[in-house]
Amino acid sequence: MAITVVGSVAFDTVETPAGRKERCLAGAATYFSLSASFFTDVRVIAVVGEDFGHAEQAVFDAHKIDTAGIQHAPGKTFFWQGSYLENLNEAKTLQTDLNVFAGFEPTIPSSYNDSQFLFLANIDPVLQRRVREAMPHAKLIGGDTMNYWIKDHKLALLEVLKGLDVLLINDTETRMLTGARSIALAAGKIFELGPKILVVKHGEYGATAFFAPQKPEGSEGIAHRAFHVPALPLEEVVDPTGAGDSFAGGFFGYLASQKELTPKSFRYAMFYGSVMGSFVVERFGTERLQQLTRKEIDHRFQLFRELTHLD
Amino acid sequence: MAITVVGSVAFDTVETPAGRKERCLAGAATYFSLSASFFTDVRVIAVVGEDFGHAEQAVFDAHKIDTAGIQHAPGKTFFWQGSYLENLNEAKTLQTDLNVFAGFEPTIPSSYNDSQFLFLANIDPVLQRRVREAMPHAKLIGGDTMNYWIKDHKLALLEVLKGLDVLLINDTETRMLTGARSIALAAGKIFELGPKILVVKHGEYGATAFFAPQKPEGSEGIAHRAFHVPALPLEEVVDPTGAGDSFAGGFFGYLASQKELTPKSFRYAMFYGSVMGSFVVERFGTERLQQLTRKEIDHRFQLFRELTHLD
Repeated sequence: MAITVVGSVAFDTVETPAGRKERCLAGAATYFSLSASFFTDVRVIAVVGEDFGHAEQAVFDAHKIDTAGIQHAPGKTFFWQGSYLENLNEAKTLQTDLNVFAGFEPTIPSSYNDSQFLFLANIDPVLQRRVREAMPHAKLIGGDTMNYWIKDHKLALLEVLKGLDVLLINDTETRMLTGARSIALAAGKIFELGPKILVVKHGEYGATAFFAPQKPEGSEGIAHRAFHVPALPLEEVVDPTGAGDSFAGGFFGYLASQKELTPKSFRYAMFYGSVMGSFVVERFGTERLQQLTRKEIDHRFQLFRELTHLD
Repeated sequence: MAITVVGSVAFDTVETPAGRKERCLAGAATYFSLSASFFTDVRVIAVVGEDFGHAEQAVFDAHKIDTAGIQHAPGKTFFWQGSYLENLNEAKTLQTDLNVFAGFEPTIPSSYNDSQFLFLANIDPVLQRRVREAMPHAKLIGGDTMNYWIKDHKLALLEVLKGLDVLLINDTETRMLTGARSIALAAGKIFELGPKILVVKHGEYGATAFFAPQKPEGSEGIAHRAFHVPALPLEEVVDPTGAGDSFAGGFFGYLASQKELTPKSFRYAMFYGSVMGSFVVERFGTERLQQLTRKEIDHRFQLFRELTHLD
């Protein structure tokens, strides 16, 4: 089944211990849609400027991603420049030019209306909510956010959370949003806000999903069913940008490809999320995702199984 | 088969967000031996002072731990005071009184000589080496160390590493010891120093083992076979002290209980390590280990399986 994603399409200039790359095709919606495209049909809602040309469009086309919802506006595409020289786990932002993104008003093509899956990537919660309300038929809705919205736009964000099934955020955001001392306690607080599943992304340490609301007997301090997937211990991370969005793309792309959603589907989705995250960081920007094959994905899935399974 | 451990027995005063506890029975050798005692026979080499009395001895006796190698010296037992109020992942040391530990000269009872497993907990590498050389019959030797020895006693430490099969250290120590940018690259460097297995402890994110020297085909940037186990996402960590030593106790205790050591044994050992680490942090000091039952261990092992396994 098709999944619609709303978020940023951007050009990134990134420096990391592995080198520097100018104006990579990037942005949360780009990472997400390329990643999800290996599993299901993907539809994008975004805005780009006049510097988004045939070469960039060709990347989406090659992965059969529906770009009817990408608006072309006068001006330049969203640009971000960051450095991971001091810390591979956290980018230092050197420049942010919102450009056409500053006036982004998502419009949803009528051809997207039957999307049963929806992912609200990290953008202004007011826009996230507008897209969510415009797509009432979606049966599974996921969302991301960031420290800025949690800190300064919490009321708008809380409105978005009410409509989410799955929230994917990192450790810092989890603690910031809930004030809880542990992610297990945070999960309980998140469930009261709307989401039924919390996926906490740990960067190089993988991700943990918490599922509401069962409290199985004898769970001994784990209030909710949890499932963990590690990240792949790579020798070199070339560029960590987009790992979380690629994880989300693998996670939701896999779910959208399933006939029904069972607890097992969500466990597999966690694995495919981490598989996709492990690829994207091997090259700058979306380069690795652009060249990826389904065979490589299946092979790496097996590596994750060997990395985690006893027998 | 029996395992011998050399390390510290101590009294700890600890403050954490969960509270404060005075003079807990602690020390690496205590955590290790209590943890390992659930799996196999354990023999301890350590030194204690006059304040180590019947109550403390009774804790070892209750777990059938052989304390013939614990020397009783005039003076006080090693004392450490630390705070986790600012950071649950790293203790701030408030006071260290080496006391009788300052003059520690390990002596090995002849009854320990047939120990086939040996664990050198974090002490002066000169002493680690002396114990290792005095026990040439050990077939599997594990060791731990810390930033202080890596920074200021590296030559002595390198001599110890030559005689180790398994090195268990944390992320920071791994990077400090090798200068490598990733733990996967660090593993290759560690293997050149002696150990055949590197277990990197990630605190709240579990642990990853790297196994030398195979480079399986198609491993795509993972130079060595790896295996990951998460930590249990507990609602509250009362006192993180001793988690690494309890992990080591579960890991080596389980291995020592096996008839033969296969790749599968090491995967199970990783799980039992994390199981034991998950218990110890639920109470101050060694309190939780003192009260633990084998049934609880088996039950939690299943929780770890559910936390990580797809099917």
